[in-house]
Amino acid sequence: MHDAINNKPVDSPEPRGLGRRHFINSAALAGLALGAAACAEKKGEAAAPAAASGATPAAGDHGANATHLKPGELDTYYGLWSGGHTGDMRVLGLPSGRELLRIPCFVPDALVGWGITNESKAIMGTRPDGSLRYTVADTHHTHASYKDGDYDGRYAWINDKINSRIARIRLDHFVCDKITQLPNVQGFHGIFPDKRDPVDPAINYTTRVFCGSEFGIPLPNTATEDHTQYRSMFSCVDAETMEVRWQVLLDGNCDLAATSYDGKLAATNQYNTENGARFEDMMSAERDACLFFNIARIEAAIKDGSFKTIGKSKVPVVDGTRAANKDPRTALTAYVSVPKNPHGVNASPDQKYFICAGKLSPTASVIELAKVLDWFDGKLEKIDDAVAAEVEIGLGPLHTAFDGRGNAYTTLFLDSQVVKWNVEKAIAFHKGDKNAKYVVDRIDVHYQPGHLNASQSETVNADGKWLAVGCKFSKDRYLPVGPLHAENEQIIDISGEKMVLKADHPVRGEPHDFIIFKRELLKPKQTYALDDFPNAIKDPKESGVFRQGRKVTVKVTSQAPTFSLREIKVKKGDEVTLILTNLDKIEDLTHGFAIPNYNVNFIVNPLETKSVTFIADEVGVFWCYCTHFCHALHLEMRSRLIVEA
Amino acid sequence: MHDAINNKPVDSPEPRGLGRRHFINSAALAGLALGAAACAEKKGEAAAPAAASGATPAAGDHGANATHLKPGELDTYYGLWSGGHTGDMRVLGLPSGRELLRIPCFVPDALVGWGITNESKAIMGTRPDGSLRYTVADTHHTHASYKDGDYDGRYAWINDKINSRIARIRLDHFVCDKITQLPNVQGFHGIFPDKRDPVDPAINYTTRVFCGSEFGIPLPNTATEDHTQYRSMFSCVDAETMEVRWQVLLDGNCDLAATSYDGKLAATNQYNTENGARFEDMMSAERDACLFFNIARIEAAIKDGSFKTIGKSKVPVVDGTRAANKDPRTALTAYVSVPKNPHGVNASPDQKYFICAGKLSPTASVIELAKVLDWFDGKLEKIDDAVAAEVEIGLGPLHTAFDGRGNAYTTLFLDSQVVKWNVEKAIAFHKGDKNAKYVVDRIDVHYQPGHLNASQSETVNADGKWLAVGCKFSKDRYLPVGPLHAENEQIIDISGEKMVLKADHPVRGEPHDFIIFKRELLKPKQTYALDDFPNAIKDPKESGVFRQGRKVTVKVTSQAPTFSLREIKVKKGDEVTLILTNLDKIEDLTHGFAIPNYNVNFIVNPLETKSVTFIADEVGVFWCYCTHFCHALHLEMRSRLIVEA
Repeated sequence: MHDAINNKPVDSPEPRGLGRRHFINSAALAGLALGAAACAEKKGEAAAPAAASGATPAAGDHGANATHLKPGELDTYYGLWSGGHTGDMRVLGLPSGRELLRIPCFVPDALVGWGITNESKAIMGTRPDGSLRYTVADTHHTHASYKDGDYDGRYAWINDKINSRIARIRLDHFVCDKITQLPNVQGFHGIFPDKRDPVDPAINYTTRVFCGSEFGIPLPNTATEDHTQYRSMFSCVDAETMEVRWQVLLDGNCDLAATSYDGKLAATNQYNTENGARFEDMMSAERDACLFFNIARIEAAIKDGSFKTIGKSKVPVVDGTRAANKDPRTALTAYVSVPKNPHGVNASPDQKYFICAGKLSPTASVIELAKVLDWFDGKLEKIDDAVAAEVEIGLGPLHTAFDGRGNAYTTLFLDSQVVKWNVEKAIAFHKGDKNAKYVVDRIDVHYQPGHLNASQSETVNADGKWLAVGCKFSKDRYLPVGPLHAENEQIIDISGEKMVLKADHPVRGEPHDFIIFKRELLKPKQTYALDDFPNAIKDPKESGVFRQGRKVTVKVTSQAPTFSLREIKVKKGDEVTLILTNLDKIEDLTHGFAIPNYNVNFIVNPLETKSVTFIADEVGVFWCYCTHFCHALHLEMRSRLIVEA
Repeated sequence: MHDAINNKPVDSPEPRGLGRRHFINSAALAGLALGAAACAEKKGEAAAPAAASGATPAAGDHGANATHLKPGELDTYYGLWSGGHTGDMRVLGLPSGRELLRIPCFVPDALVGWGITNESKAIMGTRPDGSLRYTVADTHHTHASYKDGDYDGRYAWINDKINSRIARIRLDHFVCDKITQLPNVQGFHGIFPDKRDPVDPAINYTTRVFCGSEFGIPLPNTATEDHTQYRSMFSCVDAETMEVRWQVLLDGNCDLAATSYDGKLAATNQYNTENGARFEDMMSAERDACLFFNIARIEAAIKDGSFKTIGKSKVPVVDGTRAANKDPRTALTAYVSVPKNPHGVNASPDQKYFICAGKLSPTASVIELAKVLDWFDGKLEKIDDAVAAEVEIGLGPLHTAFDGRGNAYTTLFLDSQVVKWNVEKAIAFHKGDKNAKYVVDRIDVHYQPGHLNASQSETVNADGKWLAVGCKFSKDRYLPVGPLHAENEQIIDISGEKMVLKADHPVRGEPHDFIIFKRELLKPKQTYALDDFPNAIKDPKESGVFRQGRKVTVKVTSQAPTFSLREIKVKKGDEVTLILTNLDKIEDLTHGFAIPNYNVNFIVNPLETKSVTFIADEVGVFWCYCTHFCHALHLEMRSRLIVEA
């Protein structure tokens, strides 16, 4: 709890350990005088007291609002979760919070052989010597493809901030099928697909993915030390080809991204309009910006040839700087002023607003999209008049979700709370109605929340049932497991007026953004088809060892409990390409294929084909064996690789 | 459900989808006539009907036997879980089944920088060019160090079957600190620490770890095709130094391992006494063996110089074959006959028995340890007289856990059940008391269970509260997520006469063995100490860029929200070693350090030091940034690496 008047932490009703909230807030603020963040007075707050939290019993965790499913019960929502610097995407079942799958994309995965098989290496990218270009990543944001304002179950995308890569996940097979590295940028952070075409009404689905980069760099990148010359870019990737369509040079940086439901606007919040290189510089200005992009105009400019390219990159770059976009009737971009170092920009499901949260300011800004379009049309004199509200909601506001009933839910990093507030009442308050109680409820979370999201929140069908919140510190919420603590994800029931904390789930660091949607929106395939793979071995009779000089192709199939080849003979120094097709058709009947000492292991799901290539540089007998439990004779399912001198 | 009389699958009371059990059993048996497994008649079965299963409600999942903890409630047990071919160890809280930590050991981990930092690479092992020797693994079994018959919280060990490696986990920091690759073996599978010294009574704790290898190979390994010349070995690793102390050459293979509480005996079950190379050969004999090792005699033989070495290895190897060990008074080994292709050997907490389960035989064998010792002392004529019971318990019996009240719990892979049976009653039945109802209860699990374990089951303090069971097929237990299904781990309350299924938990493939123990047995450290690291940078003033020719050492510290160096300048071609110490002392205040394009990311926990070495081969500005959320100004926490031409 926070004393709103004196801005001092006070003892909160925590069940175990006094002063922990105070302690953590001190940690989170160590070394920094956050003067501007002082929430001198909590205005517009409803009379209802903050909800109790901590180990308060989740009353009656059964029935319609239970998070604890009985054995065999299925979840009603999917969640797609960014895995942070673990580098993966995770699929959760909600409301149970159970992790159903980790989808490898940017970093290797020993279970499936991601980074081991030829197919996965081709997607991930390799150096000239065939080794992987990257084995680390830092995923932050994930969003899925749209049709008519809701998810259409085709794709999801996820970013890698370290190496500025974007990965696409196929939502039929739940696998990564393409990765693109963005040119000319560093710190690619925000990502959001468009929701329809800005011009063609027939294209009512996602065809572009927008990518914001945080770190300004010399363009092209040199050892230039003068950081005032560094620039960031906003990039557009084609949703189908995954090629970079265009980039926008801009003033300041990009952080998160949002898109309008009509396809006309994309935006990014900017926390470093100062172009600072040190944190003191980055927080020196009292106001930063939410930067809007007029997609149709940008693409028209490119069509007209009004672009340049940078260095070796062939991607067209248009000029989105303030100086080049002063005239609203020709402007490609619009910089809307918002308070200090905002973090998070989110589109409301009523299609009307983007909410930009303050981080170092205790405020949320509500930006009215119709007015931004008015400004581009020359109908609004000052772009800042598009701000419908700028209201105080608590300390350290970051990300916002929606319930489809007019309420927004924003994480308060410093307050360790989620605040529920009503958007229209906030607008009324901002307009002068000081009786408008826009804050509806607050709930303590544990601790220091970052991202949050609600079921269907990023669609026109936001349903206001479940809210998940990713807490950056778990402290004492779990049994101690050494110096690396789990993060803490909490599930909150938002179906009523007051929020109810239902469950804690530990997660491997460090989940960032996520989306939650109804299970009916996906139609996953539970086996592959042989024809999905051009190199499939469709009949065990096609198996064999085929030699062309020193290149050897081994074709093998699996059917429990045997591989089609019991012996595989090659010679020392051969370049061996082994292709394995799993001919077992039965759902869930996966096999693995490991070769001791040769650093080979991968799995083949039903009717899947994969291949590996290696040099047979060690003489001897190597027992290839099935690593994925398949059958009562799984242990006995083996082949012998015999490498002759 | 299984019709015990006619041995036909019958419809079970499944809530969704008829005949799924039948379907899966067919899959598990595809292509194999399992004649010997036919359980023609279920003898010795108690009158109680099999427990209902499926989505049957877990009655009243609150209170003392609840698996669903309220927000903020702590688990009462730790679980250490083998991660299978994901290659990690996992730490769970029980009874909630929540995954609290994944401990990287054999394969890289992008979150912590395992396989990226110099310290982790030194533990994992590298090739001459500095790249990792292995990036895949297949962990199966994990067990912890003992003192006086219970866990002492020092170490856990885990195996890698693919590359025959053993890793040690420190249970204060929950990190891997040593990895050893075993010589002369392939398919290292079973692992078990000893529980006290066989000779010195003062050594009442673990000093050895035993390792069984499955795959026979030519010794030394050549391209020999004649598999009758292949041999397996049983290895002993020193618990402290992690060096291989000795190996035993044997007939047949090793599968799992067990040790006696008095330190005198270790054993491995053998499913391939035939030394077959194909599964048909491996299952040709009607009986296989449980092979016992007399530890004191083996070590006396080595002391006497009665050993040889193989190839380049200097590890002493003694002869444990049948031919060399006919005289019980000098024998190092004893081969106890058990039915066909056993899988699993487990020591009972009353310290009296090893249970060997039949897999292809529907039986469990109870072997009395006192009688095995009698045989070694020349007091028992036939070693097979050490078998106290060989009783039918169901189809496909694999692993056995105990409740400390005289009952054993065995997974039935083909029946998809756990069977609870009373050991003393089974012995009575075997001795001729046909009224002894040794089967107490059966419960359906979902589906095809492999390993199981119970709380404290592998100690003298088995407490009979919780049983976890790892099911190899999850089928329709979770929302579909494409062709790769989660495995299904189930939590069963065994505190009463009847087993009660409490919860399903999906897990990333493929968990194998695990142990569950009381939380009071561990005292983890939640921060490091600076002195834990010889290269720690104890004061930010020691930071800097230090050059010796082309070798550059960068010393940097972290304290939220800054790194001690804001700029790091090096020249193209420099070999850069960057050392980072996290000077933040506060629990859970971890930082990350990423360098774009240079494939560097790792985290430093409070007061931890890590280092990386790379060649600065790309000119430009590279924004090093904190990847582990730490502070309100986390996004602003950066340094610039400037690589000059």
